[in-house]
Amino acid sequence: MELHILEHRVRVLSLARSGLWLYTHPLIKLLFLPRRSRCKFFSLTETPEDYTLMVDEEGFKDEETGTQRRAAPVGVPASGRGHLAGAERVVPQRSSGASGGGHEDCPLGHRAAGRAPRVCADAVHLPDGLHPGPNPTVHPIQSPQNRFCVLTLDPETLPAIATTLIDVLFYSHSAPKEAAPGEPGPSSITFFAFSLIEGYISIVMDAETQKKFPSDLLLTSSSGELWRMVRIGGQPLGFDECGIVAQIAGPLAAADISAYYISTFNFDHALVPEDGIDSVIEVLQRRQEGLGS
Amino acid sequence: MELHILEHRVRVLSLARSGLWLYTHPLIKLLFLPRRSRCKFFSLTETPEDYTLMVDEEGFKDEETGTQRRAAPVGVPASGRGHLAGAERVVPQRSSGASGGGHEDCPLGHRAAGRAPRVCADAVHLPDGLHPGPNPTVHPIQSPQNRFCVLTLDPETLPAIATTLIDVLFYSHSAPKEAAPGEPGPSSITFFAFSLIEGYISIVMDAETQKKFPSDLLLTSSSGELWRMVRIGGQPLGFDECGIVAQIAGPLAAADISAYYISTFNFDHALVPEDGIDSVIEVLQRRQEGLGS
Repeated sequence: MELHILEHRVRVLSLARSGLWLYTHPLIKLLFLPRRSRCKFFSLTETPEDYTLMVDEEGFKDEETGTQRRAAPVGVPASGRGHLAGAERVVPQRSSGASGGGHEDCPLGHRAAGRAPRVCADAVHLPDGLHPGPNPTVHPIQSPQNRFCVLTLDPETLPAIATTLIDVLFYSHSAPKEAAPGEPGPSSITFFAFSLIEGYISIVMDAETQKKFPSDLLLTSSSGELWRMVRIGGQPLGFDECGIVAQIAGPLAAADISAYYISTFNFDHALVPEDGIDSVIEVLQRRQEGLGS
Repeated sequence: MELHILEHRVRVLSLARSGLWLYTHPLIKLLFLPRRSRCKFFSLTETPEDYTLMVDEEGFKDEETGTQRRAAPVGVPASGRGHLAGAERVVPQRSSGASGGGHEDCPLGHRAAGRAPRVCADAVHLPDGLHPGPNPTVHPIQSPQNRFCVLTLDPETLPAIATTLIDVLFYSHSAPKEAAPGEPGPSSITFFAFSLIEGYISIVMDAETQKKFPSDLLLTSSSGELWRMVRIGGQPLGFDECGIVAQIAGPLAAADISAYYISTFNFDHALVPEDGIDSVIEVLQRRQEGLGS
């Protein structure tokens, strides 16, 4: 396996769900108007808690410009540089204070560091073992009922799904007039991930949400498999804690189960093939018993 | 000729150019997500001074919702109901105070009433004559060099031009890196009008701007003629002054010159066929001399 270290310096930001509308202008620019921005790394992931935005320095400047023009000054932490998705997080300079949540006046915050730094088992060294360090915190896992698609799209055809994508990203939190049949039930999770990194688009969405998009533009793997999610973290994970990815990825690799991993500001998410979800949960629960004992 | 009085109660609002980004979220909803809004009358016109927004009560509620969620409270006048484009304006209850302009903190304002009410020659009674009332104010006219297209579009194909339309409407004020050849010169005017009224779309844009759009989706009249603009008003027109439309439309009708008329918050705009612009200016200057004497 060859690893490429991308040169982008990426920031990880949390946007409150209730404050996303305020970022519509810079986000739409980053999403759909590549000629207006020099951003090469853009990722926006919706979770029940917040939107996690990852942008490189160029994209952050666009974002910041929008922020600074706002009527009310908003605390944009000047520091707190994150790393690439999947790599371990660094501790933001602003090491206290809750983030995310429903702060109408301050929708932007860096992932709060909830724990003291531990010995690092860098995600890049994954197969080092199941035990990422001495006395690691074993994080509880949840497995919502949704079935997810992992999709891509030719960037040239992105304009063709623009209005649908805008609808799903910026207006889905509006309560629909009436719940459509097949809408995710209460045991499902709100989750939507879009990334545009060096011209490559990745989208993870609920299979129900996919029905809103034109069927001929979104591409998936030839098997067309659906994925289930394992969500890691009972309470928000800290940026300073190491080994979180390893304690999930290790057991899955050992059991020969493929995984698609997405970190967000508060929690981590491993997508696994639908057929394997039962054995995944079994494997991870065994890990929990093993590490927790 | 049959006249239909639409039932919409329409508000006329001025959005400062520097504040438009703050309205991106509600405006995109009104423009592109008809299923999310009950708005049936929407019109947004960009001029060098501001953006004029006309929406019915349903659309205004959407707009207001966005406004109220803003970090800083913004003065949204609760009164000041306008009438349909082309009809005479009513005096807003807020009868003093400047509007538009560059107020960063208050980008929304109703057209300020600049003059005392005069005897009304309602625009609906146009052929009543060239003299709309005793001692009418003769407003100076300008004729910028741009050539304009008057276009329409099947609402079903609106999503296909969404990103271009968003780019032109919400991001065109960003200074381009370098001026493209054929860019409007200093004697040209920034003007773009989009309306979506009961499912019918009308767009007026500069012929240069049209080149940014896919050529096969925008429809125009079979003659494909281009239009020139006559802009009425040396200083902002008042909502309470009557007969402004008539003093332009009358002479043009008498000279058998067709006109496409667009009122905005501050000024009025008559588009006339390119071939006729010289005689139009002559006709209107004669009017000026006649009325002014």
